[in-house]
Amino acid sequence: MSNNTHQKFTALRSLMQQQQIDIYFVPSADEHLNEYLPAAKQRRQWISGFTGSAGDFLIGMESAWLFVDSRYYEQADMQVDSNLQKVCKVGLEGHQTMEEIIAELGEKALKQNQALRLGIDPFTITIAQYRQLSDRLSVSGTKIVPITENLVDNVRSQSPWADHETIPIFGDQPIIALPETLTGEGIDQKLQRVREAMAKQKATVLPVTKLDQIAWLYNLRGRDVECNPVFISYAIVTDTDAYLFTNTARIDDAVKAAIAQQVQILTYEQYIPVLRSLIDGGNGVMVAIGQTTFGTYLQLKEGNAKIVESENPIENYKSHKNAVEIAQMQQANLKASWAKTLTIKWLEEEVATGKSISERDVADKIEGLYKQQEGFYDLSFPTIAGAGANGSIVHYSNPSSECKLKDGDLLLLDSGSQFYGGTTDDTRSLGIGQPTIEQRDRYTEVLKSHINCAMQKFPKGTTGSQIDGIARSSLWQQQLDYGHGTGHGVGVFLNVHEGPNGISKRVSQTLDVGTINSIEPGYYQPQWGGIRLENLYFVKEIDKPISSQNSSQTPWYEFESLTYIPFDKKLIDRDRLNPQQILWLENYYIQVIAKLSPMLNGEEIAWLHQACKF
Amino acid sequence: MSNNTHQKFTALRSLMQQQQIDIYFVPSADEHLNEYLPAAKQRRQWISGFTGSAGDFLIGMESAWLFVDSRYYEQADMQVDSNLQKVCKVGLEGHQTMEEIIAELGEKALKQNQALRLGIDPFTITIAQYRQLSDRLSVSGTKIVPITENLVDNVRSQSPWADHETIPIFGDQPIIALPETLTGEGIDQKLQRVREAMAKQKATVLPVTKLDQIAWLYNLRGRDVECNPVFISYAIVTDTDAYLFTNTARIDDAVKAAIAQQVQILTYEQYIPVLRSLIDGGNGVMVAIGQTTFGTYLQLKEGNAKIVESENPIENYKSHKNAVEIAQMQQANLKASWAKTLTIKWLEEEVATGKSISERDVADKIEGLYKQQEGFYDLSFPTIAGAGANGSIVHYSNPSSECKLKDGDLLLLDSGSQFYGGTTDDTRSLGIGQPTIEQRDRYTEVLKSHINCAMQKFPKGTTGSQIDGIARSSLWQQQLDYGHGTGHGVGVFLNVHEGPNGISKRVSQTLDVGTINSIEPGYYQPQWGGIRLENLYFVKEIDKPISSQNSSQTPWYEFESLTYIPFDKKLIDRDRLNPQQILWLENYYIQVIAKLSPMLNGEEIAWLHQACKF
Repeated sequence: MSNNTHQKFTALRSLMQQQQIDIYFVPSADEHLNEYLPAAKQRRQWISGFTGSAGDFLIGMESAWLFVDSRYYEQADMQVDSNLQKVCKVGLEGHQTMEEIIAELGEKALKQNQALRLGIDPFTITIAQYRQLSDRLSVSGTKIVPITENLVDNVRSQSPWADHETIPIFGDQPIIALPETLTGEGIDQKLQRVREAMAKQKATVLPVTKLDQIAWLYNLRGRDVECNPVFISYAIVTDTDAYLFTNTARIDDAVKAAIAQQVQILTYEQYIPVLRSLIDGGNGVMVAIGQTTFGTYLQLKEGNAKIVESENPIENYKSHKNAVEIAQMQQANLKASWAKTLTIKWLEEEVATGKSISERDVADKIEGLYKQQEGFYDLSFPTIAGAGANGSIVHYSNPSSECKLKDGDLLLLDSGSQFYGGTTDDTRSLGIGQPTIEQRDRYTEVLKSHINCAMQKFPKGTTGSQIDGIARSSLWQQQLDYGHGTGHGVGVFLNVHEGPNGISKRVSQTLDVGTINSIEPGYYQPQWGGIRLENLYFVKEIDKPISSQNSSQTPWYEFESLTYIPFDKKLIDRDRLNPQQILWLENYYIQVIAKLSPMLNGEEIAWLHQACKF
Repeated sequence: MSNNTHQKFTALRSLMQQQQIDIYFVPSADEHLNEYLPAAKQRRQWISGFTGSAGDFLIGMESAWLFVDSRYYEQADMQVDSNLQKVCKVGLEGHQTMEEIIAELGEKALKQNQALRLGIDPFTITIAQYRQLSDRLSVSGTKIVPITENLVDNVRSQSPWADHETIPIFGDQPIIALPETLTGEGIDQKLQRVREAMAKQKATVLPVTKLDQIAWLYNLRGRDVECNPVFISYAIVTDTDAYLFTNTARIDDAVKAAIAQQVQILTYEQYIPVLRSLIDGGNGVMVAIGQTTFGTYLQLKEGNAKIVESENPIENYKSHKNAVEIAQMQQANLKASWAKTLTIKWLEEEVATGKSISERDVADKIEGLYKQQEGFYDLSFPTIAGAGANGSIVHYSNPSSECKLKDGDLLLLDSGSQFYGGTTDDTRSLGIGQPTIEQRDRYTEVLKSHINCAMQKFPKGTTGSQIDGIARSSLWQQQLDYGHGTGHGVGVFLNVHEGPNGISKRVSQTLDVGTINSIEPGYYQPQWGGIRLENLYFVKEIDKPISSQNSSQTPWYEFESLTYIPFDKKLIDRDRLNPQQILWLENYYIQVIAKLSPMLNGEEIAWLHQACKF
């Protein structure tokens, strides 16, 4: 593998020399700022060999660097040859960020009276990222050189690579139209709301880059990206028109009929020419700098567009789920809860009878159960089934048939699916055989963290970072913590990770009614294993608020679970739970039994009852 | 009063007409962005009649508006005539922000094909505020007109006002130099650190606007502003020189001798000319857009300065207290704790003997005790002593001799002082006579909130907003809350409120070792009263961390109290405290007794022992 990587680096460096750049930046994201990418656009993965869902790559003439967050510290070490590329574990003491490394190279160049030249593909970074880089690097006089041709694509199309594996085709999968019974809101209404927001900002043109925004706006879904029911496309909304730019060959009559009244369907390649034509005449173009590529921005600038910087209204609307969407999510997550609960039962029984079970067996089992449920469409992310030490790799996404579950292991099972209508995501850690005291202690601490967060009431206006602190509070008292956020926003039959809401120290966004968030505290110890306990919750107003003594009449909110799966009773130390936590868990179990029982046979129901005694 | 206000508005509107502006903005802040201002600069207070420490004023040709935050909702209603100016309670449903009102006026003007003209004194807003206003108002084509002459000053200097009360002299109070035994760091070292930060950003000139930054940098203190030991001045640091611009007449030889080696002392009026001369020749000028006035920025722009936008390094250094500063703060806050504890004892005894005590009597008592302590310099803010309903006015700063404490009242006593070396700030709510069940319930909930926050351990990198959530968690479960942040940063023998650290949902700054923060949860109910329980704490690394299982070896932090004052045992419902909270309070009381006893006589010690039984 290293040899191959070395060859790729050599080819890339040769192109860099031709372009007269000193370093080249290969981010994880593509033209649509996707977190999960079509294979054709997995440039960082292809060039570096690191397969994680996040992580940027930087290459100079002599060195190369891979930048990963705490979810991927272990995985990156395992996947890349540190002789060829240095793994920078961002957030860890003594590890540099990409900006710091570029700044350092820039300083060095400056001392030799030279300006460092940093090459980028402007369509793979946002305007906000460009500006931040540019601000940070201006001190050293570093020049950012936008190169429209993607150099990794160029290498990939060369021999020997193109001989064995041509760049995969992308954007060729069928698109489906969703009825209003699934979305709760028609395209016309959505467009009207977007246009109202545009009018407020005196904008008449809104280019849309992100695939989930386009899918939400037009009530369409696709399967161009594994696990994400989106399709490669651009959209433009104007005060009078709406456009969809995509591979039109795969659009059937049903889809055409569903959107033709509101939306003009054009080829993917027409995005830039149409955008350029629409900005003539001084129309205000609405641009969300965090959700539009610098490449699009350069086009707007070239066309002398009047740019109105603003939040993207679609992102906000999409995060506030309507009643139909919540109902869809309840149904989908109940199906997923059924699948995980039966997987837990199956595993317990297999282990009890002494069968040899691998990580891959567990993943296959739950994926099989998902597929049995009506409306199954796809997984929502690659199933994580990490046994023993593998559980400490937060996003361990390649369950192995070689890794057998051993007595005394913890198994971390994080999985989700796309059902026609809703998206699911849940995690349980399970003890194989008799757990150790340490496993039980840690598991109970993570469970307390989950419950404390899940049962928290909060006033309107509370931010994700405040709730994140509350989730960690009890773990922190034990000097334990987890290196990821407490929760992320989730789409409705859309991406399993979406913004702007979430529960983490970096989220200043408020947790509004109708937003959906995961709550997933954890505990990870390399070589030892990992624990993560994840449910999805939606935010709702408290039905019968305590009569408020405040004149301000602030609305009060709480979380309601979408996920109904028992926790592993072997790992719960009831004595460490306080009365409120016990009450929450007892109530939760009443609902687990009530909701799952109609989907279970008698023997399964009996098992569930005993699983819910703790 | 209203008549007088009406006359002032008329005079101001006449000046506005001369300047051809439609609306004029009078912020709370002055040229040095002070929170507390010298009387000469209290323009918003003078024009509107509202005396709170924060709140902006806006006036149009027919209407006027006062914008206040939740601390001042009640006080503003009481102090201003709503026929003349509308009180906008920012944060309350249905109340507009200033930006929204201006935007609305701008839209109206636009519909009549006119551009609204908003007048500002550019030296009273920051660059960041200007930009935000400008961005927000660009849609309506509103024009922001900087007017160098302050129009409120102009009105104030007219008849009849100037006849009765000339604008007070300011900047004439003596300045003192602090020895390194109080500051822990000499001017030369501080300048060296600042210059290193400047060099990193390729800046050679740093203009300094904020008075506490100047006082900290040059180890000087003054008394130009009530309660803030600062002095009206500007400073400029260059890579080779340092300047102080102030009223030089009041600087004595001792001060000159203390700083002359490092600092050139010039008159206040020389600030702009010297700044203009220093920016010639393309020197990089470091500008923190949140801590520099737009007036200074306009000067730099006029001079074609090369502006390097950056954080102000002084603000960061100042917030990380060294060991000498912490020790000074411990001494000062022990003196203040002694004063408040004895005030509580005195009050208990006076009430028990049936004496009639007023709010003012209580304020006088504690201020008298502060003055008995060695090194007393000033109060750190006007004493808040609010009885009964007055306690719900969060910043009730005018204790009245008319308001007598009544049986069944709560008294909220929030006070602080400046000692030569350290700044103090603490609050206790006290029950007069027998408390009601509701008072006891609420008090215990606020105490739980305080203790939960104070005993929280947290890893390096934790933000103020995460800790804010933890402080509120238990109150929120009762659907109770307080409308202010949980805590603010505190200066060392400097301003009682300082940034950038703090504990509130808006603070993304991390809580680093050596930062000092108040913890002051509360509960307020109009007409009923208020509860606030405030100590100051510094952040320190945990002495003996539990051996960390994480390979990352994250340092763990905790709070240590600077304040040692008993809580009111009558108001504590011990049954509502959990074992951890009881343990914290018992340990706290061991320290209260240990630290205060050496300052008390036998009878006082005996009283303290019983006060600390709960």
